Amino acid sequence: MTFTDIATRTYNHNFRLDPIVRSLLDTDFYKLLMLQMIRRLHPETQVTFSLINRTKTVRLAEVIDEAELRAQLDHARGLRFTKKELIWLAGNSFYGKTQMFAPDFIAWLADFQLPPYELERRDGQFALHFHGPWSHTSMWEIPALAIVNELRSRVAMRNKDRFALDVLYARAKAKLWEKVERLRTLPDLVLTDFGTRRRHGFLWQRWCVEALKEGLGDRFLGTSNVLLAMDADLEAIGTNAHELPMVEAALSPDDASLADAPYRVLEQWRAHYGGNLLIALPDAFGTSAFLARAPDWVADWTGFRPDSAPPIAGGEQILRWWLDRGRDPREKLLIFSDGMDVDSIEATYRHFNGRVRMSFGWGTNLTNDFRGCDPDGEAGLEPISLVCKVVAANGRPAVKLSDNPAKATGEPGEIDRYLRVFGSTGRAEQSVEV
Amino acid sequence: MTFTDIATRTYNHNFRLDPIVRSLLDTDFYKLLMLQMIRRLHPETQVTFSLINRTKTVRLAEVIDEAELRAQLDHARGLRFTKKELIWLAGNSFYGKTQMFAPDFIAWLADFQLPPYELERRDGQFALHFHGPWSHTSMWEIPALAIVNELRSRVAMRNKDRFALDVLYARAKAKLWEKVERLRTLPDLVLTDFGTRRRHGFLWQRWCVEALKEGLGDRFLGTSNVLLAMDADLEAIGTNAHELPMVEAALSPDDASLADAPYRVLEQWRAHYGGNLLIALPDAFGTSAFLARAPDWVADWTGFRPDSAPPIAGGEQILRWWLDRGRDPREKLLIFSDGMDVDSIEATYRHFNGRVRMSFGWGTNLTNDFRGCDPDGEAGLEPISLVCKVVAANGRPAVKLSDNPAKATGEPGEIDRYLRVFGSTGRAEQSVEV
Repeated sequence: MTFTDIATRTYNHNFRLDPIVRSLLDTDFYKLLMLQMIRRLHPETQVTFSLINRTKTVRLAEVIDEAELRAQLDHARGLRFTKKELIWLAGNSFYGKTQMFAPDFIAWLADFQLPPYELERRDGQFALHFHGPWSHTSMWEIPALAIVNELRSRVAMRNKDRFALDVLYARAKAKLWEKVERLRTLPDLVLTDFGTRRRHGFLWQRWCVEALKEGLGDRFLGTSNVLLAMDADLEAIGTNAHELPMVEAALSPDDASLADAPYRVLEQWRAHYGGNLLIALPDAFGTSAFLARAPDWVADWTGFRPDSAPPIAGGEQILRWWLDRGRDPREKLLIFSDGMDVDSIEATYRHFNGRVRMSFGWGTNLTNDFRGCDPDGEAGLEPISLVCKVVAANGRPAVKLSDNPAKATGEPGEIDRYLRVFGSTGRAEQSVEV
Repeated sequence: MTFTDIATRTYNHNFRLDPIVRSLLDTDFYKLLMLQMIRRLHPETQVTFSLINRTKTVRLAEVIDEAELRAQLDHARGLRFTKKELIWLAGNSFYGKTQMFAPDFIAWLADFQLPPYELERRDGQFALHFHGPWSHTSMWEIPALAIVNELRSRVAMRNKDRFALDVLYARAKAKLWEKVERLRTLPDLVLTDFGTRRRHGFLWQRWCVEALKEGLGDRFLGTSNVLLAMDADLEAIGTNAHELPMVEAALSPDDASLADAPYRVLEQWRAHYGGNLLIALPDAFGTSAFLARAPDWVADWTGFRPDSAPPIAGGEQILRWWLDRGRDPREKLLIFSDGMDVDSIEATYRHFNGRVRMSFGWGTNLTNDFRGCDPDGEAGLEPISLVCKVVAANGRPAVKLSDNPAKATGEPGEIDRYLRVFGSTGRAEQSVEV
């Protein structure tokens, strides 16, 4: 005797759209922290974000149906923060601090809506741009990436039957759990989920977060995904991103102002947040340049998030800098977040253990590692290197140099100008896997 | 917004008993074939079956609650063949033959009920005996084993939370699928599921059968489980078991009659069934003895199921015997079914490929291989070597010698008598894993 839930079954076979993003909280926490500051300091600044697929071999516009992409983006535009979500943002404590978000910001969020998008197909890729006030376009980064990544996953799974899907997820679960078992043998390891934007899918990210919670207990510090943090009663994790120095740099009227832009942004941040949120991202225009010219007070910050240099070399560079400035690295924090996986987490942990406080922001290789899991041996579920970056601010081109030229973005002429201003010391090409 | 099916949830939290065996068809097909013959030839023969746990280190009565075991056995006693099941048995074709089961047998099954059981705890094990007419006690073998094995699985999983269970099954699925992927590279391999009696659980066996169907297609010939065969529209597979020669031997009035018992049973079988059902089980009292004294017509049978000799050595012995008798092994069939797993299936397949037709009855290592899958690293899900054997017929002790003395059953004095009658040529001790 088979029991069929007729209502669910009927609902399923009348499915119109299975929305990928169902809440405006389904985004990274740093977006909200940055947004509060952007809204105060840059209410009128116009910023364009664009999708950039670094994995050129995957011709996204030939994989994903444009109409489906539009339907998902349109659905996201229809979302509003719910009352429950706003009450939680206002009432929850973050990083040990209550009222992280001011009442006027919460009130402003209540009317927030994602701005229009501009989409066309070009050379097998999607040209997807978000034009408008920075305080609105910034919020597209995470949902746009999550939507494109999950639509690609869905295509890869469209022709799989129920059984192949069952095997696929069984393997992916077994694979992730092997990683968790390896990681939990490292006694002082702590880490966080940074995998929202690159995730295979929302439900899968939720499973990954449950796996970390189950396997690592308190050593799993939390997730960058605000919705999952709320639903699973975890800490929401994150600080700031490259868009802050990139926009500040783009708006700089001359080279002297440009050279100083990374530090102005840190001062602005420090005026808004403190404690464990004082994490500097040093690599927007090259870590060597950043450290060489950094004011002494930067060494008083809690730590750094190296995001494009090789983790051990990049970490050593920062440790030397702290020591040169007379600071004790053992009181400092490094957050590694650039394409980490179990091997690099283990190696980095073992290398620095006892010499500096560490945390790991585990992203794509946590929430989208289906390599070798497809029973049909297809490649459609291999992760790709997709980002959504600031490309212009008030009509001026934006640039990211990065420690790895393969991760640089911006117009060539403008990149050259930035290289003249910041120098290219310490930059070294690395292959970008994810 | 979470959707909860209130009726299901309410049903779940009022759960009284989750029955392990829910249908009398949830048994091995050979049981029904044998039963039809037993009922005709031995309507009055009284046969006792007993549970025998060869894995002495697992003290079953300290693991499984006696009351739970009784509840499951009682539930099985309450089962009857349903109308749908009887119609299917009567109307389906088996091994290409319609009306395998005669109308009078089907009518008799309609009133069939499992007979009483006798259960007590002794030295940490269960003394579980089934006394009564052979035509009834025979049917306890499979449900009794399935119940004890699954109750043991349930105990091992009782304190696992939802997440650990999720990882456990993900790993077990991934593990089985690796096996399927290895096996399907062998171009002419065919195999069947023989895993009912030793299964981890009913739902898990069903998944395993789906996996084989999906992964091997037509090369998965079917399942010994009659219920799964019916539900999944697969072939029901199986022929006969040791109980036939064991009872015939036990009832033999003298040594001459005993020596002839294995062949009398084959004559009886041949009178009931033909074609691919003419598979002889040669090892009840030692394969060497069986072959040495076998009448020539045995070499005309379709094949053998070696069940306790090492597969390659045992198969070679039978091939030599066919050649000595002037038969071409390439027209014969060997069915290997003794504790097979991927390695031994591969090795046996490669060894005999092209020299004889082969099939594999894959049992415990198909439906109960959770080795290394438990996220807590516990051993409660490791399979054990549990059997349910004939121990007496009409008050006379029953004996199985086997090619492997570790699989012998019976009273020591009676075993000695059988060894005098049949000899001990070719018997060799092998460790019994499952």
